Amino acid sequence: MSDETLHPARIGVWFVGARGSVATTAVVGALGVSHGLAPATGLVTELPELDPDGLPDLGALVFGGHDVSSQGVPKKAEALVAGGVVPAAVVSAIGAGLDAIDAEVRPGYVAGEETATKAVERLAGDIADFRERHGLARVVVVDVASTQPPVDEPDHVVDLDDRLPVGAVYALAAFRAGAPYVSFTPSPCLRLPVVVEAAARAGLPYAGCDGKTGETLLKSALAPMFAMRALELRSWTSVNLLGGGDGQTLSDPEAARSKTVAKRSGLDAMVGRPVPGPMHIDQVEDLGEWKTAWDHVRFDGFLGTRMTLQLTWQGCDSSLAAPLVLDLVRLVAAAHEAGRSGPQPALAFFFKDPVGGTEHRLSEQWRDLVAWRGGLGA
Amino acid sequence: MSDETLHPARIGVWFVGARGSVATTAVVGALGVSHGLAPATGLVTELPELDPDGLPDLGALVFGGHDVSSQGVPKKAEALVAGGVVPAAVVSAIGAGLDAIDAEVRPGYVAGEETATKAVERLAGDIADFRERHGLARVVVVDVASTQPPVDEPDHVVDLDDRLPVGAVYALAAFRAGAPYVSFTPSPCLRLPVVVEAAARAGLPYAGCDGKTGETLLKSALAPMFAMRALELRSWTSVNLLGGGDGQTLSDPEAARSKTVAKRSGLDAMVGRPVPGPMHIDQVEDLGEWKTAWDHVRFDGFLGTRMTLQLTWQGCDSSLAAPLVLDLVRLVAAAHEAGRSGPQPALAFFFKDPVGGTEHRLSEQWRDLVAWRGGLGA
Amino acid sequence: MSDETLHPARIGVWFVGARGSVATTAVVGALGVSHGLAPATGLVTELPELDPDGLPDLGALVFGGHDVSSQGVPKKAEALVAGGVVPAAVVSAIGAGLDAIDAEVRPGYVAGEETATKAVERLAGDIADFRERHGLARVVVVDVASTQPPVDEPDHVVDLDDRLPVGAVYALAAFRAGAPYVSFTPSPCLRLPVVVEAAARAGLPYAGCDGKTGETLLKSALAPMFAMRALELRSWTSVNLLGGGDGQTLSDPEAARSKTVAKRSGLDAMVGRPVPGPMHIDQVEDLGEWKTAWDHVRFDGFLGTRMTLQLTWQGCDSSLAAPLVLDLVRLVAAAHEAGRSGPQPALAFFFKDPVGGTEHRLSEQWRDLVAWRGGLGA
Amino acid sequence: MSDETLHPARIGVWFVGARGSVATTAVVGALGVSHGLAPATGLVTELPELDPDGLPDLGALVFGGHDVSSQGVPKKAEALVAGGVVPAAVVSAIGAGLDAIDAEVRPGYVAGEETATKAVERLAGDIADFRERHGLARVVVVDVASTQPPVDEPDHVVDLDDRLPVGAVYALAAFRAGAPYVSFTPSPCLRLPVVVEAAARAGLPYAGCDGKTGETLLKSALAPMFAMRALELRSWTSVNLLGGGDGQTLSDPEAARSKTVAKRSGLDAMVGRPVPGPMHIDQVEDLGEWKTAWDHVRFDGFLGTRMTLQLTWQGCDSSLAAPLVLDLVRLVAAAHEAGRSGPQPALAFFFKDPVGGTEHRLSEQWRDLVAWRGGLGA
Ligand SMILES: NC(=O)c1ccc[n+]([C@@H]2O[C@H](COP(=O)([O-])OP(=O)(O)OC[C@H]3O[C@@H](n4cnc5c(N)ncnc54)[C@H](O)[C@@H]3O)[C@@H](O)[C@H]2O)c1
Ligand SMILES: NC(=O)c1ccc[n+]([C@@H]2O[C@H](COP(=O)([O-])OP(=O)(O)OC[C@H]3O[C@@H](n4cnc5c(N)ncnc54)[C@H](O)[C@@H]3O)[C@@H](O)[C@H]2O)c1
Ligand SMILES: NC(=O)c1ccc[n+]([C@@H]2O[C@H](COP(=O)([O-])OP(=O)(O)OC[C@H]3O[C@@H](n4cnc5c(N)ncnc54)[C@H](O)[C@@H]3O)[C@@H](O)[C@H]2O)c1
Ligand SMILES: NC(=O)c1ccc[n+]([C@@H]2O[C@H](COP(=O)([O-])OP(=O)(O)OC[C@H]3O[C@@H](n4cnc5c(N)ncnc54)[C@H](O)[C@@H]3O)[C@@H](O)[C@H]2O)c1
Ligand code: NA
Ligand code: NA
Repeated sequence: MSDETLHPARIGVWFVGARGSVATTAVVGALGVSHGLAPATGLVTELPELDPDGLPDLGALVFGGHDVSSQGVPKKAEALVAGGVVPAAVVSAIGAGLDAIDAEVRPGYVAGEETATKAVERLAGDIADFRERHGLARVVVVDVASTQPPVDEPDHVVDLDDRLPVGAVYALAAFRAGAPYVSFTPSPCLRLPVVVEAAARAGLPYAGCDGKTGETLLKSALAPMFAMRALELRSWTSVNLLGGGDGQTLSDPEAARSKTVAKRSGLDAMVGRPVPGPMHIDQVEDLGEWKTAWDHVRFDGFLGTRMTLQLTWQGCDSSLAAPLVLDLVRLVAAAHEAGRSGPQPALAFFFKDPVGGTEHRLSEQWRDLVAWRGGLGA
Repeated sequence: MSDETLHPARIGVWFVGARGSVATTAVVGALGVSHGLAPATGLVTELPELDPDGLPDLGALVFGGHDVSSQGVPKKAEALVAGGVVPAAVVSAIGAGLDAIDAEVRPGYVAGEETATKAVERLAGDIADFRERHGLARVVVVDVASTQPPVDEPDHVVDLDDRLPVGAVYALAAFRAGAPYVSFTPSPCLRLPVVVEAAARAGLPYAGCDGKTGETLLKSALAPMFAMRALELRSWTSVNLLGGGDGQTLSDPEAARSKTVAKRSGLDAMVGRPVPGPMHIDQVEDLGEWKTAWDHVRFDGFLGTRMTLQLTWQGCDSSLAAPLVLDLVRLVAAAHEAGRSGPQPALAFFFKDPVGGTEHRLSEQWRDLVAWRGGLGA
Repeated sequence: MSDETLHPARIGVWFVGARGSVATTAVVGALGVSHGLAPATGLVTELPELDPDGLPDLGALVFGGHDVSSQGVPKKAEALVAGGVVPAAVVSAIGAGLDAIDAEVRPGYVAGEETATKAVERLAGDIADFRERHGLARVVVVDVASTQPPVDEPDHVVDLDDRLPVGAVYALAAFRAGAPYVSFTPSPCLRLPVVVEAAARAGLPYAGCDGKTGETLLKSALAPMFAMRALELRSWTSVNLLGGGDGQTLSDPEAARSKTVAKRSGLDAMVGRPVPGPMHIDQVEDLGEWKTAWDHVRFDGFLGTRMTLQLTWQGCDSSLAAPLVLDLVRLVAAAHEAGRSGPQPALAFFFKDPVGGTEHRLSEQWRDLVAWRGGLGA
Repeated sequence: MSDETLHPARIGVWFVGARGSVATTAVVGALGVSHGLAPATGLVTELPELDPDGLPDLGALVFGGHDVSSQGVPKKAEALVAGGVVPAAVVSAIGAGLDAIDAEVRPGYVAGEETATKAVERLAGDIADFRERHGLARVVVVDVASTQPPVDEPDHVVDLDDRLPVGAVYALAAFRAGAPYVSFTPSPCLRLPVVVEAAARAGLPYAGCDGKTGETLLKSALAPMFAMRALELRSWTSVNLLGGGDGQTLSDPEAARSKTVAKRSGLDAMVGRPVPGPMHIDQVEDLGEWKTAWDHVRFDGFLGTRMTLQLTWQGCDSSLAAPLVLDLVRLVAAAHEAGRSGPQPALAFFFKDPVGGTEHRLSEQWRDLVAWRGGLGA
């Protein structure tokens, strides 16, 4: 009698950026929720519309990944406790689990330190080895590493060579190892010809880009309201204050450019024309793991009356991102099992800048997601 | 060759509360937009999804109504100019039109001054007379009068007698005159057995209650976002500051009770359980025709992380309401022409407290509306 | 050689409401700061302008008090850690100190359970006993108990009898024990003739009422700005959302009345006329120890231009109150030592509704405070 | 019998930038208020503390100025009516007055089009001619022209040559004509050695720089509150959204640099150390003459508790600036009459970046101003 009939298949989760805030919060949460130490709040795949029973259990997930940092997952978890992101009680209860996960983290790829070709081979080997050592049914690779700057002519990126952006190297490695891929970052990756073709050759599903967690989420719920009510958006100003590792990365204007492009596109698409208004992403050190976003929306009503909506969003980005990462793993694993391949536009619900799709309105994305999930079966 | 083939049918709009802010803004806007003096901003029925060409033109609307105030429509329009609600240029261009409309206003019903039975007869006569004098294809009656207090045992209101709430008297008059009815107010009316039965007997369509213009609109766009993301709403506080006639009425706690009940119900329905949090409607004289609403939303994310969304909405209620009133007239006229009768839940999109329906999510309401409109044909 | 020359005099702090949030935060903070576990942030008496060296050291304070609750100070401290009010590390480092303090808490006065006359005697005995047992130079009594409702005719409260409000019973007990008194609450007390006369007879200093910690503090900084700039305040709306013990007390409309009266008076006094606008204090359970206040300020500028300022204050009331309580103890102890008696209007800086003074503008209060402190000497 | 005994001396006001928003609003307001068409709201010099009777009447002011724009004052006034800055009724009542003022506008100085030496001569001639033609007791020159970029090494600007910044050319012209000077802009001027020395030689008073009207005003009222309460400011983020002419100028990063430097300095000075946090000035076209500023203030309280204050200021910059300009004219004219010379630090109350003074706290500035005004006598 095989192991498989005794318990459901175990699924690997391989994080690029395994020692970062999002990855660590996801790991703490998966262990915490599956051990009954915390409720399933924030996990979209626990909603009845997505039929959770037919998806891999949180308890069936096995974690590992790549990172370039030497600060381990347990240390990061401590920092997240101090920052109010994850509860002290949960972390202390699952401490041993975190040590085990950190032992599964392998050195990441640093451009210049090895050739891209070698890197793809080495990284793919790490992923395959992880799958085999743990007897996993499949491994889903998720990029939650620091945001990379955009490339100048994405359409010309057709070859595996040393100019290949970091994210693409990881995607190629995943595909080489037979693993589906999720890009949770705005780093250039899933639209590059070299990546698209590798995925097609491998027949693997993939999804991205850039998790939709904060004010872009709000925009995707609110911009349709203005459109449905024939109210005229005159300007939409967005200010994001954030500390933390992500804030630090984004205080580099080059990296921030990837982000602001991802954030802008959706609004203009939903409104059907460019909506003016500045967009700022500012590093405010003392905010730590928290973000405050202020949006100022000017719209005209009947007979040109000038009206305003202001939003202040105070959220913890890692807490918003982590459950979505777990949702994506469960859904992409199910899609892989169901034999799906290529971009999965029905997962647009999770992304600021969905690959393979053009729908940005949250409710329509939700409807698409539910329908797609239904199509996968149990 | 009949008149009908030469020009489209003219449609009557009969306002209960014809000299109020909403009615006057609607009238100024209908004249202004149909004369090309202002864009169609805010008119939902001008969106392509609702096939405007198949609906009555704004220029085909003829206005009249009941009111208990002796201050005429032109005077009210001046006050709205001073309050920044409607542009001076539009009002001066259409001045003569406003005089003509004011000449079509008839004395309203004041409880105690005549019996309800007499009132229904008299008011119905005014409506029928209006239709005949102007050779109108049909008249849609819209209640935009001051909000009335709720009744204690609505299910027991089965007879036309002097305890009948004011709104119901008008609805019975409309039905007696063969006119469809829209209740844009939260006044008790369309759920009272006596009204429901009269509508059924007359085979007429009706819609209500309480136009969804401000923070309830926001809630219907945002609460689904929290639900779809499995985020846990812990409290939702709503503070509405408003001046103007409506503010004055609602500073009467009895009248305000109708309003707060209408405003609450939707949120709880969308979330599936009561969401705690105070709700205030305050009269702040110096705000004039403008409203400021502040909402404070507390929600929990992954692992119980506490997050907050705050909204500040600065809008002009009459400007938000008036185009919806015109939309409802066009849609209900088309429904009447298409032979529809009874409550029209597909119009829930326009209301805080939709009769005949339970859907409060804006996007779903929009989808229902578009489908229903498609069903009416041209 | 006397004890006094060896070490500075030890000062007693006797809290009415010793097991509440404010008292417990003050105690945790006094121990934490004096043991070097936390910085002196929030302690006004540590600013150079107030010459800290001439005031009693935090480490010289000895704590005790009355309460009617049986839940001890250590338990409360734990709850404050859970609520994010005080750091876990500080509380665990000073644990033993908290036990010792809780052992100094005596049963409080409950109207109806003993006569007011007996109560004054008993409570005064507790205070005197505390002073003697610990060899304290003096004891300052501070009321931080739950807010009591206002009395109807305060000027008629001239006798010690059973209708005497609770706060006044404690004040009389303090004076009987020779202890200066601080009322940090809005409970009716320091303006009642019976209390004023007892203080005069005893020759003791006192100060109150109602600690100025949140939006009233903001008002006292901002209202003068509008006045100095000749900007016309048209309305000032204040909404306070709070959870916690204080929120619960204030959800009782009677108790809240004491609070809103205290909060209103200052603004009108600073502006020189009543400024309209609603004021709400709402209990929002899930906010726990935190408060969110939203203020909406409408003012006119040159030629009547309409402008607006909105404020959102997110603070922890106990953290704001506790250092002020310690400041008041140090300052009132110094005043007592310097032989001052009667109301101390120069302490208006700390209060929403200062006794003996009419100055509400924060900067002027600060100037008065600094001058008064200078007058006390070291 | 001389003219002087019959009526009070008439005072000239010479605006650099006479056809701009601030100048035009000041002119409309001076005429409107002196003709009793509008109340004195916003005029600090009408407060009793500043003894208005001893200052020049608004009705005694005679206006002229320089500008490089050919769009006249009446046209600008119309635009300000359309933008909701000044009331239509006032402008139409004083129309003739505006024409007369526009006839007193002379061509301004454009660097490169004439030498700075020639320009000083010509501009000074215009001012002297204006004084003589109207028989004015004195002329106060006020720079309200578009903001100029900062200079690189201000201390090295010692000569009248063609590299001299525009603002300094005007100041030298004023001094040559014997006129006191007010710089209401952040343009480099009153700290340049060449200007300081010219003023000293001429024995004339001057004041500046950069009118304090919006969020810097708020900071000067609020930062002292944090300081007095020993609360630790951790970051202060400022976002300014504005349309209009000033917004357009400041969308040029070079010009904006003058502004942000002026805005920053005060906060750091009040707190005694640099307070981190981004500062943005964004042009948002559709805001027209209005500004919205959002400030996010993070501060620590007792035991390090993290708290936040957010401010949203919605004001009309020209309406805030114009009365201060008139106040400065009245006060500087009185100072000139009283024989004062050099920088007037007691006018710091009006400026973001006061010359000759270091006090930024609003209440202290007010106290200094009142004392200084007292010293001038009637
Ligand atoms: N938190 C959110 O709400 C959210 C939303 C959308 C997207 N994202 C994206 O998720 C990503 C992670 O965010 P975070 O807050 O966890 O950031 P973080 O800085 O805490 O973590 C990033 C991790 O990536 C690692 N890393 C950097 N370069 C690497 C490389 N070449 N190979 C492997 N690992 C590398 C870092 O060492 C670090 O451990 C970012 O790109 C962010 O933009 C986050
Ligand atoms: N403006 C909005 O955004 C909005 C949204 C939803 C609902 N509403 C509702 O629309 C209604 C109208 O609002 P408004 O701002 O125009 O108020 P308003 O006070 O300006 O106008 C109400 C009019 O009704 C008249 N009236 C009062 N009693 C009457 C009676 N017995 N018979 C006939 N007329 C009578 C009044 O004289 C007045 O002219 C209110 O009930 C309001 O609650 C408005
Ligand atoms: N926290 C602030 O910012 C602030 C500001 C101004 C005033 N205050 C006032 O301080 C007081 C305390 O606030 P808190 O948050 O600590 O409240 P809390 O409810 O946590 O504590 C009040 C304590 O008083 C005790 N108490 C009740 N009745 C008593 C009695 N008859 N005798 C003795 N003790 C009694 C309660 O048992 C409780 O332990 C309140 O009156 C509040 O209005 C607080
Ligand atoms: N409005 C406020 O609250 C405020 C506050 C502080 C400072 N300021 C400053 O006041 C100034 C005026 O603001 P505004 O809103 O009136 O701007 P504006 O653009 O409406 O007016 C500026 C005027 O200056 C004129 N000008 C430009 N270059 C000139 C030159 N070389 N010589 C003579 N005139 C010239 C322009 O033609 C225009 O008429 C700006 O520098 C602004 O930064 C305004
Ligand atoms: Na939808
Ligand atoms: Na002061």
